[in-house]
Amino acid sequence: MSDFTTKAVDTIRVLAADTVAKANSGHPGAPMGMAPAAHVLFSQMKTNPKNRKWINRDRFVLSNGHAVALLYVMFHLMGYPISIEDLKQFRQLHSKTPGHPESGTPGIDVTTGPLGQGISNAVGMAIAQANFAAKYNKPNYKISDNHVYSFFGDGCMMEGVASEACSLAGHLQLGNLIAFYDDNKISIDGATSLAFTEDVGARLTAYGWQVLEVPDADTDYEAIAKALEKAKATTNKPTCIKITTTIGFGSLNAGSASVHGSPLKPDDIVQLKKKFGFDPEKFFDVPSDVYDYWRLIADKGEKANQEWDLMFEAYCQEYPEEGAEISRRLSEKLPENWEKLLPVYTPQDKALASRKMSEIVLGKLEQALPELIGGSADLTPSNLTRWTDAVDFQPPALGIGSYAGRYIRYGVREHAMGAIMNGIAAYGANFKAYGGTFLNFVSYAAGSLRLSALSGHPVIWVATHDSIGLGEDGPTHQPIETLAHFRAIPNLMVWRPADGNEVSAAYKVALESTVTPSVIALTRQGIPQLEGSSIEKAARGGYVLSDVENARLILAATGSEVSLAVDAAKELTAGGLPTRVVSLPDFFTFDHQSADYKKSILPDGIPVLSVEVMTTFGWGRYAHAHLGLDHFGASAPAKDIFKAFGFTTEDVVAKAKKVDAYYADKEVLSRLDGPLSY
Amino acid sequence: MSDFTTKAVDTIRVLAADTVAKANSGHPGAPMGMAPAAHVLFSQMKTNPKNRKWINRDRFVLSNGHAVALLYVMFHLMGYPISIEDLKQFRQLHSKTPGHPESGTPGIDVTTGPLGQGISNAVGMAIAQANFAAKYNKPNYKISDNHVYSFFGDGCMMEGVASEACSLAGHLQLGNLIAFYDDNKISIDGATSLAFTEDVGARLTAYGWQVLEVPDADTDYEAIAKALEKAKATTNKPTCIKITTTIGFGSLNAGSASVHGSPLKPDDIVQLKKKFGFDPEKFFDVPSDVYDYWRLIADKGEKANQEWDLMFEAYCQEYPEEGAEISRRLSEKLPENWEKLLPVYTPQDKALASRKMSEIVLGKLEQALPELIGGSADLTPSNLTRWTDAVDFQPPALGIGSYAGRYIRYGVREHAMGAIMNGIAAYGANFKAYGGTFLNFVSYAAGSLRLSALSGHPVIWVATHDSIGLGEDGPTHQPIETLAHFRAIPNLMVWRPADGNEVSAAYKVALESTVTPSVIALTRQGIPQLEGSSIEKAARGGYVLSDVENARLILAATGSEVSLAVDAAKELTAGGLPTRVVSLPDFFTFDHQSADYKKSILPDGIPVLSVEVMTTFGWGRYAHAHLGLDHFGASAPAKDIFKAFGFTTEDVVAKAKKVDAYYADKEVLSRLDGPLSY
Repeated sequence: MSDFTTKAVDTIRVLAADTVAKANSGHPGAPMGMAPAAHVLFSQMKTNPKNRKWINRDRFVLSNGHAVALLYVMFHLMGYPISIEDLKQFRQLHSKTPGHPESGTPGIDVTTGPLGQGISNAVGMAIAQANFAAKYNKPNYKISDNHVYSFFGDGCMMEGVASEACSLAGHLQLGNLIAFYDDNKISIDGATSLAFTEDVGARLTAYGWQVLEVPDADTDYEAIAKALEKAKATTNKPTCIKITTTIGFGSLNAGSASVHGSPLKPDDIVQLKKKFGFDPEKFFDVPSDVYDYWRLIADKGEKANQEWDLMFEAYCQEYPEEGAEISRRLSEKLPENWEKLLPVYTPQDKALASRKMSEIVLGKLEQALPELIGGSADLTPSNLTRWTDAVDFQPPALGIGSYAGRYIRYGVREHAMGAIMNGIAAYGANFKAYGGTFLNFVSYAAGSLRLSALSGHPVIWVATHDSIGLGEDGPTHQPIETLAHFRAIPNLMVWRPADGNEVSAAYKVALESTVTPSVIALTRQGIPQLEGSSIEKAARGGYVLSDVENARLILAATGSEVSLAVDAAKELTAGGLPTRVVSLPDFFTFDHQSADYKKSILPDGIPVLSVEVMTTFGWGRYAHAHLGLDHFGASAPAKDIFKAFGFTTEDVVAKAKKVDAYYADKEVLSRLDGPLSY
Repeated sequence: MSDFTTKAVDTIRVLAADTVAKANSGHPGAPMGMAPAAHVLFSQMKTNPKNRKWINRDRFVLSNGHAVALLYVMFHLMGYPISIEDLKQFRQLHSKTPGHPESGTPGIDVTTGPLGQGISNAVGMAIAQANFAAKYNKPNYKISDNHVYSFFGDGCMMEGVASEACSLAGHLQLGNLIAFYDDNKISIDGATSLAFTEDVGARLTAYGWQVLEVPDADTDYEAIAKALEKAKATTNKPTCIKITTTIGFGSLNAGSASVHGSPLKPDDIVQLKKKFGFDPEKFFDVPSDVYDYWRLIADKGEKANQEWDLMFEAYCQEYPEEGAEISRRLSEKLPENWEKLLPVYTPQDKALASRKMSEIVLGKLEQALPELIGGSADLTPSNLTRWTDAVDFQPPALGIGSYAGRYIRYGVREHAMGAIMNGIAAYGANFKAYGGTFLNFVSYAAGSLRLSALSGHPVIWVATHDSIGLGEDGPTHQPIETLAHFRAIPNLMVWRPADGNEVSAAYKVALESTVTPSVIALTRQGIPQLEGSSIEKAARGGYVLSDVENARLILAATGSEVSLAVDAAKELTAGGLPTRVVSLPDFFTFDHQSADYKKSILPDGIPVLSVEVMTTFGWGRYAHAHLGLDHFGASAPAKDIFKAFGFTTEDVVAKAKKVDAYYADKEVLSRLDGPLSY
């Protein structure tokens, strides 16, 4: 390639150095080292800066998110709405250019920075693309053929979540996935040889990847382009292009840990610009022919988008049904009346485990919602996440499913499942991703779950075996702190339905959500269908399930403890202590109801006793006293554990009477009120 | 090997089948498949059932913990205090034989079951052994030369935590680690080919392991023994012995997923016993020559232990200093007066980041506490976890440290770090393991952290960058829900010290703890030394930092917000609203103080406003109103974020006045009281 390429590459380097220096905070090393790969890749990528939602655009995920200055620079050059002024506002309050990539920033689909997540999100996007293509492509109509690209570094490769996702990507033979591994041999502690001497290429090969190497990715642009060409020609396995780079190329500290996370000093920037033929007096300076170059690339992308639009028009003529479905999905709307498919129960219906009721919901919805795609982390027969006759999402070559299948065999990889769901959701096309595991092991994916909430990916965790009610597997499997943990995460729904109608409500709200993920906690054991529940009521997150006149006490419960509360309330009321039962299936949704509504559920003057077989931590927001479990569980049949830990009707009745007696001579204010509004 | 071996192996299988069938719950498949490996390995293992704390015993970790019936059977045969009656009580309430291995059960060092943890614990034990040997072995005195063995299955190999730990074990060249991989090709979903087609052997080889294969581990005992011999002869890399087994060998459902997690049916047990030459009418029947065999093995172990005791006596003569140190460590006592080394501060001392004050503590203690061993997940210069002149724990061959070194370069592997710390703690010898990362990324290790608490491993997380105060890295790095999550875990201390004395207090309590792990949350930014703090007071978890007469309001704060509360209280008091400041560095420790003490800190009649830049979730336990952060953070300089989110003196003063006004005409009860005792 030409001198111009060198100039264009060096422009990226200089601009990244200026950006980080201006903020006096950030990571210049990786952007400067990966500039050649970025130049080559972004020159070829199919994107239209003017239509950043184009479904067939190539996706790009910066897994080493700390290198985000590189991304802002590229977006600026390519004509995304990131101005030089935005670069100057890098890492400042309310800027468009935060310290790590945040979805919502123009051009960024997933929030990255926590290492290992981005490459795993990319696997999810690749799954989504393969599924979308397999479902909708027709002879002569390649509705979907985009690639998913990612940059990742040593840090990502050390993280377990990336190992899990890369192993699954290899199994799934995702030829649409091309990842550049920045082998710069430096991490924050120093040389990677301090802690990371494995053979990364051999490991990825063992996972089933194609591994290509570019020994000098500082200057050999041609080799990068050739490797990329070969990767794009490979359709039956993901490709890793291992590029050996010099971190902070051009800096006086090139190749050292100090350039990883600290801005270049002023004199270093001066020498850098001089060395690269730039004016050291100028900052944020882009040669006009570099802008021209990227404008042509952007124009090409715009044209490709226009051609796709024309093709899609013709497709809609020839395949009106599929065309309409795609259009609906692209508008991010569920089909009309889909919610009428949700099962409704009466108290006469038989008791079932709520995991079973979840399975019934999935079975009812799967045909109406082609965007529904899910799986389980190797607990399918326990989580009951696979509807009858589901087709597995598998590479056609294995003969055990197809890419058009919508049931993903995640293997025992909870963390990757979380990150992959985020990637599927981020792909667009209204994909609704769900994933099953035991509630306790959603914690393995805490890193991804938090990012679902932060990025606003409305994924759904089907979290079964949700309490000591799972019985014999014992305390290693029984959640105690788990619901509190999840309820404390902003923008996360944590449903714990009490019966079939509440299960339907949880799915209704979760599937209608466009920006809030959900955890749906479900029982292993059977629970009865309750008098007084309904989808409508439960969809408000909290409601009065059963009431009495002049209630003097409220039992507030969730999930399997609601029927326990109902039994206790009956006994209490009959015994002269009129007791209301409140079901609170989701704190998040309840908190978002009007103040009046909430006060009508938990009013002043009536003490509230919470009943939940988990930690009492956090229940102070609603209840004055708690029946909970502030210690670990035990291995035994469920009935024996409930009894041993004080969760029988008699226990609830006894505690309730104490609460009533305690508050008899005291003023009772609703816990919903207070001097400060939240 | 002989017919006797077959009989002995089949005894294990039949006993495991009986155990699971009696409970009508559990996992017979893996125990029956792994019986030959168990027989061969346990026959050779250096253990003394009569002295289960012998420091030089071989360690064994069952990483596929669901196969625990195998372990109970082996322990029974070997003469551990697990009787036939205990086997019959498998998975019952209060039995010695819970559904997954729980530390505390005779012979079990670590709690396993959550997949991937056990093999990672084993890496930690191997690190501990290597360190102990390097420090104390002398010519002619092999004080420490035990092996660490583990069984693991496909599920473990799919989990990211195991990937991280195995990669590090390869880097560290841990020749004392020998792990049997049960390649039975079955997981809960069915054939592993549904989700797991990677080449496990090649992957481990890429990590730097030796991989040996036993193609028929159902019957070829000789081959298992030979592989074991070769593994023991290899001292410069960990070995994986890949044994191909038939899950549920002998059962009618052998080789299928159905035998993984369901008891054998009665007719299946009958045919199994007939096939193996056992009396189908008898249950829990052990041939007397099998008992005899294991009694000889146990005797051999006892003798080895006695020989070691004699050697250690002589060692103490020749090396009295080291001998005394070992004796002290084996008694699990810290050296006398160690706590006098903890730094004490006065308000005149300069403001420092609490991560820096943590570094000072480590520097003061490292010489006095040879059991202190720690590291960081690639954030050493940020976490400040490495004392000056620390030697890295590294294999001697790399020339960058030694096994006697006590600073572990974990790489970007938080989850493995957590599991490895558990393994180090479980090794014994009073090892005090600490590990550093950003507070937000301790969540990546949630699975291991929970097990620290459940198993009672007193490990210490040095969790820096503990709030939005980390600034520009932004919301991906800023904890919001994290402290609530950890505070909700039973048996976990969550320290957030407010100044230098509180940092010292946190380390004091954390290091003195023998069964409770700690997370110590530390600031990136500087915080002042406070008037009124002391190690003694802070060591109670909560105390009155500054008081006034007739206080009408309490500000309860932690960490960096305590000085903010102090400033606000001064202004409030001066303005006519007498305000007390309470520092609550650790809820867990505070909760364990006497009711009187606690009530003296947070009495009736005074409303409490909590001040903490995190979720308010859970603060209802102490406070009536909250100033917190129930949304995600932002990328900007710390000062700007604190201001933007309402954490300035003026903000606190304004909120405090509202709280005071609200409660002026209301009865205020301490949140510590209530109708129920917790």
